Amino acid sequence: MGGDHGSRAIIHGAARAVQENPALTLELFGPRQHVMAELSRLPQPLAAAASRLVPRDAADTVPQEATAAWALRHGQRTSMALMLDALGDSRAAVDAAVSAGNTAALVALSRRALGTLPGIGRPAISTAIPARKQQCYLLDLGANVDSPAHRLVDFALMGAAMAQCVDGIERPRVALLNVGAEATKGSASVREADAVLRDHAARGAFDYYGYAEGGDLYGGCVDVMVCDGFVGNAVLKSSEGLAGMLVERVQSAFESRLSGRLASLLARPVLKRLKQELDPVRYNGASLLGLSRIVVKSHGGARAEGFYYAILRAMQEVEHNLPARLSDRWQAVP
Amino acid sequence: MGGDHGSRAIIHGAARAVQENPALTLELFGPRQHVMAELSRLPQPLAAAASRLVPRDAADTVPQEATAAWALRHGQRTSMALMLDALGDSRAAVDAAVSAGNTAALVALSRRALGTLPGIGRPAISTAIPARKQQCYLLDLGANVDSPAHRLVDFALMGAAMAQCVDGIERPRVALLNVGAEATKGSASVREADAVLRDHAARGAFDYYGYAEGGDLYGGCVDVMVCDGFVGNAVLKSSEGLAGMLVERVQSAFESRLSGRLASLLARPVLKRLKQELDPVRYNGASLLGLSRIVVKSHGGARAEGFYYAILRAMQEVEHNLPARLSDRWQAVP
Repeated sequence: MGGDHGSRAIIHGAARAVQENPALTLELFGPRQHVMAELSRLPQPLAAAASRLVPRDAADTVPQEATAAWALRHGQRTSMALMLDALGDSRAAVDAAVSAGNTAALVALSRRALGTLPGIGRPAISTAIPARKQQCYLLDLGANVDSPAHRLVDFALMGAAMAQCVDGIERPRVALLNVGAEATKGSASVREADAVLRDHAARGAFDYYGYAEGGDLYGGCVDVMVCDGFVGNAVLKSSEGLAGMLVERVQSAFESRLSGRLASLLARPVLKRLKQELDPVRYNGASLLGLSRIVVKSHGGARAEGFYYAILRAMQEVEHNLPARLSDRWQAVP
Repeated sequence: MGGDHGSRAIIHGAARAVQENPALTLELFGPRQHVMAELSRLPQPLAAAASRLVPRDAADTVPQEATAAWALRHGQRTSMALMLDALGDSRAAVDAAVSAGNTAALVALSRRALGTLPGIGRPAISTAIPARKQQCYLLDLGANVDSPAHRLVDFALMGAAMAQCVDGIERPRVALLNVGAEATKGSASVREADAVLRDHAARGAFDYYGYAEGGDLYGGCVDVMVCDGFVGNAVLKSSEGLAGMLVERVQSAFESRLSGRLASLLARPVLKRLKQELDPVRYNGASLLGLSRIVVKSHGGARAEGFYYAILRAMQEVEHNLPARLSDRWQAVP
């Protein structure tokens, strides 16, 4: 029921996912009448696969402006909570949950319904940012503010495990975001995390790059970049804002130099593709890492296509059995 | 002597500034022989104005990798320290200092040589970010990490004063960067600063917008955005990195669709201009605010043109007598 474009976009994205993946079934949590009505309106060929879209009745929804505390206190009967209960219930045989709803509520309700993996205090949110040569996982994106050193270290281990398990990068390069490359810079928690990560990496399953600056996110030299959730959220959202403004400016610059017809022929298709590539959360979804089960957050502004990609992301994580492999990784840490 | 492109770029930028501004004289701090040699190589028409480029001998320079502590202990005879001493010496009749050198050293040495304005504990670094309709001052960009609430409030007042004095915005709209617009979100210092700013704005000289997210930096709805230096530095540098990557991608996308000749005719001029517009520090310089005198930091990667713009920025602040007006503002705060 979440997302700025309402349940229609979500149901269309879900229909595309089941249509393209014959082994996939999706349970749709929301007011049954409403979900049924949307399902009945699906156009062909999407409607053909609708038998694998199963409505699950949930009378309430989490409001977009609700706080985590509100969700924990009053959210028991919301579509989000019922979805997470199903994921947490071993008899339900659900493999993953995907939501475009309120992020703070999703983190809080997921933590309560699913619990974190042994040794992980709190989940982190991560998404793959499109960088120069490959992508770079950035985390945390806002599940935690004011992260102490041990939490930054958890983020690094989780990010490295994800790059290794899901993307098959044998030794992911992990960096710690800082205000400069010099060892004396940064906050106390960042410097402490740096010392621990140097030690881990010497024995561990990833290469520790050391400190990186904001620009290195796009440089293609690291696979995982770690920071506090306040910083990661600011970086992600400012990047989304900048990418949007830039694409608009390129478009208007071309339109002012070329005739309208020529501009639409030449510039628009290029810019459209670029816009999609540069809108990471909207097109990839963001993973809630460190939970005992798989939860993917689709961007609130996602349309059907974005929600479809978030479902694919969840399927990839199921295929690679991400929580179990994260858990193995934690057991191996001395 | 600072900057990635060496003193030649700086001296060229300086020569352009004096050539275009007949009332301007610039003192150039660095090893005299070296500066003289560069001055003698200036091409016409720049060489014509070189009599207003006055070499000031300084044997040492601050290394790019030096820490603030090193600069304070060992940097007394560096070109940066001697420049700031001249600015601090009332007999020298110097109005402002501009440097492309080590930022941490510049902040530390400026603080020692010039002192902060009464009531301001530490300087902040700010630059104008190109947003949708107008520009937005972002501060702090890295002079402070882990800023408590009272420092965030100082940043807001300084940013508002700058937008008002230098850009003539009668009631600047000031926002506090946060992870979400909801009142319950964010770190304790951000929430405390929010409460103080609401109170200030009710009686004050600016409109308080409240919390904003990273994307609002480019949205055109605020004139000043305030955050801790760690966050501001990460946002600025990731934005620079993204803008660079994006311009490359647009370019290669056009080149793969158009013939090389057509691409260079149509796309390159548009992209070149865009690249400049989107490279805020390189093209505007960054102001060290809260000091008793005017200090502008030019981007380390600035070429002659970037250094020239940093000098223009300093001249604007001199013209508007920015430190005195900031100081008046502080007297007026109850």
